[in-house]
Amino acid sequence: MKEPSITFGFGTQIRKSPYFDATIRWGAKDFSVYNHMYIPRDFGDAEQNFWNLVNTATLSDVAVERQVEITGPDAATFVQLLTPRNLSQCAVGQCKYVLITNAQGGVLNDPILLRLAENHFWLSLADSDILLWAQGVAINSGLDVSICEPDVSPLQLQGPVSGDIMRSLFGERIETLRYYWLEEMVLEGIPLIVSRTGWSTELGYEIYLRDGSCGDRLWELIMEAGKPFGLAPGHTSSIRRIEAGMLSYHADMDAYTNPYELGLGRLVDLELEAEFIGKAALKAFALKGLSRKQVGIQIGGEPLIGSNNEFWPVLVNGEQVGKVTSATYSPRLKSNIALAMVAIEHTVIGTALDVATHREQRPATVVEKPFYDPKKNPSSSAAKL
Amino acid sequence: MKEPSITFGFGTQIRKSPYFDATIRWGAKDFSVYNHMYIPRDFGDAEQNFWNLVNTATLSDVAVERQVEITGPDAATFVQLLTPRNLSQCAVGQCKYVLITNAQGGVLNDPILLRLAENHFWLSLADSDILLWAQGVAINSGLDVSICEPDVSPLQLQGPVSGDIMRSLFGERIETLRYYWLEEMVLEGIPLIVSRTGWSTELGYEIYLRDGSCGDRLWELIMEAGKPFGLAPGHTSSIRRIEAGMLSYHADMDAYTNPYELGLGRLVDLELEAEFIGKAALKAFALKGLSRKQVGIQIGGEPLIGSNNEFWPVLVNGEQVGKVTSATYSPRLKSNIALAMVAIEHTVIGTALDVATHREQRPATVVEKPFYDPKKNPSSSAAKL
Repeated sequence: MKEPSITFGFGTQIRKSPYFDATIRWGAKDFSVYNHMYIPRDFGDAEQNFWNLVNTATLSDVAVERQVEITGPDAATFVQLLTPRNLSQCAVGQCKYVLITNAQGGVLNDPILLRLAENHFWLSLADSDILLWAQGVAINSGLDVSICEPDVSPLQLQGPVSGDIMRSLFGERIETLRYYWLEEMVLEGIPLIVSRTGWSTELGYEIYLRDGSCGDRLWELIMEAGKPFGLAPGHTSSIRRIEAGMLSYHADMDAYTNPYELGLGRLVDLELEAEFIGKAALKAFALKGLSRKQVGIQIGGEPLIGSNNEFWPVLVNGEQVGKVTSATYSPRLKSNIALAMVAIEHTVIGTALDVATHREQRPATVVEKPFYDPKKNPSSSAAKL
Repeated sequence: MKEPSITFGFGTQIRKSPYFDATIRWGAKDFSVYNHMYIPRDFGDAEQNFWNLVNTATLSDVAVERQVEITGPDAATFVQLLTPRNLSQCAVGQCKYVLITNAQGGVLNDPILLRLAENHFWLSLADSDILLWAQGVAINSGLDVSICEPDVSPLQLQGPVSGDIMRSLFGERIETLRYYWLEEMVLEGIPLIVSRTGWSTELGYEIYLRDGSCGDRLWELIMEAGKPFGLAPGHTSSIRRIEAGMLSYHADMDAYTNPYELGLGRLVDLELEAEFIGKAALKAFALKGLSRKQVGIQIGGEPLIGSNNEFWPVLVNGEQVGKVTSATYSPRLKSNIALAMVAIEHTVIGTALDVATHREQRPATVVEKPFYDPKKNPSSSAAKL
């Protein structure tokens, strides 16, 4: 069935970002919903958005990355309780990519953790109400913590010239900001946290606005500073993030996916003495071994148009052995690339598979991830730290 | 600023309901997102949808009302822990409208609770991840419970002829189903729970499909049975629910709203011996009294077009004293009606206020809720039980 073009209504049940008016002014044509908030997902041409990102830079409204703020005397202990990643080496001023797991070892979210002070943390969320999870866990934890959603709304400035734009906004100070570190900054009176993180594997920054009333002004200041460098308004690029093998919550993983299946075992420390939720279940998964695994696949045939709207079945000899979770055509690689969750016996590099798209069956092959090698592109970094 | 007509993309990050294809076939033109799932919100004309609902009946895809299933030896104790409503009189087979509150007494959700068996409950949710909240609360609760989201997707059949349609589907058995009770039923092999509940205050039923693969068939069976009675495909009606003073989560309340401010003190039992989350905070609210309250208001001027897209400020002598949370034009009452959260000193019936819509300032008056009196309409019931 052809996907209809459907008009989308705005109501108060879903929140608008502090950049909403700015993104409309700058050409946002299509929105989705994430963490109960509208997110612009189309400025006219997804391929152009990709080229803007990899050739110059894009500014994206990612205010939907809501923050869960955890403070109080037991904040550090509590945050460790929430994630299987070993946080003992996470310094004040550092960021970490972490998984939040439930008692069954399933992934509830994959946020960036920001440590603003000894006992002051933010979890910069993917799309699920970790505020409720954290408040629920706190109820009987015996730990003294406060948990809230502060007035914080990030922008992503990503792409090879993003460093130049940041220098023109913040001066040379920005050059000392290391990958996956953060700094408190002020721009023309606007209170910010700036981190060298993003969702593109390009050189990039996230700019966390700490006063929603300044959203429009902040957006315009950055666009103005970016003008000489070719900055374009944009959105997170599915093409670029799939090239990098980066995951999208709900699409590529959910509460029924464990970290090992995602190839994210490095984010689990079973030797950790401290308690964390899901430890017993994750130990059992580690002992048992994998029955399925996420792989990169190349899909044959004509360039895909847009992304997959369904989880396409992955077949071997006509039998379903998995599903495609995210697929797109990469104009740079001139290839259809996808992430798929596949039964373990069909995950060896070079394995031939079939993929049933909504239109037809296509041949596919298991390939290495990431699809695009960042070593050929010195401004990129391969992994989320 | 004029709200743009914006096209909306479908991806795998947001789920499709088991009725998605059916609703597209039957004319769905506009979707929103609720509990990480698409919900149809427009079949062409919101006013026609309202008249269909109050004159005959509408069938609505409300699969977005995801269920949190709580089972296990301590399920009843655990469910009571989640809500300030006294559940000691909730029999097996009964439904209750409940609030879920956090430790601060704020409302996290306002689901329908269904008691399927002594220790088998569903919470039929408004838009927030109570699955995460409940799983989080369970972690150190010491209670033996299992909590999951089952494969359950409700439809709402609402309107004065809905009883006739249900009789033609299920026979005379349906006549004994009382308001806010449920029964297990099977329709041509499709496993269901049927309850006499809804979000319209009209005579109505919710039909909980327990096997997502049968969604298309169930939808067609009901539409076919409804044909002689004038059943129309539709969506929940903002006009009808505002007429009834029924609340929409995130719009009319959130985690920073307490039950008393919403006039829902009847859903809080501070005398309850059993523990529930938020008891201390709610006691403090009850002692302190209200600083603001939700009221019904009538707004003057021309008929409003659609609903409010912003929280419109409520003013007295040019000073903001509150906000309009939900507003619409009722073609039956020939009046603009709205729910507003207003400082307590301006909530007496008859108080004159001003409302700043996105276009202009309009006069408004505090009036009684509900706006439409169900006593004049014998098929309706005024309150959620």
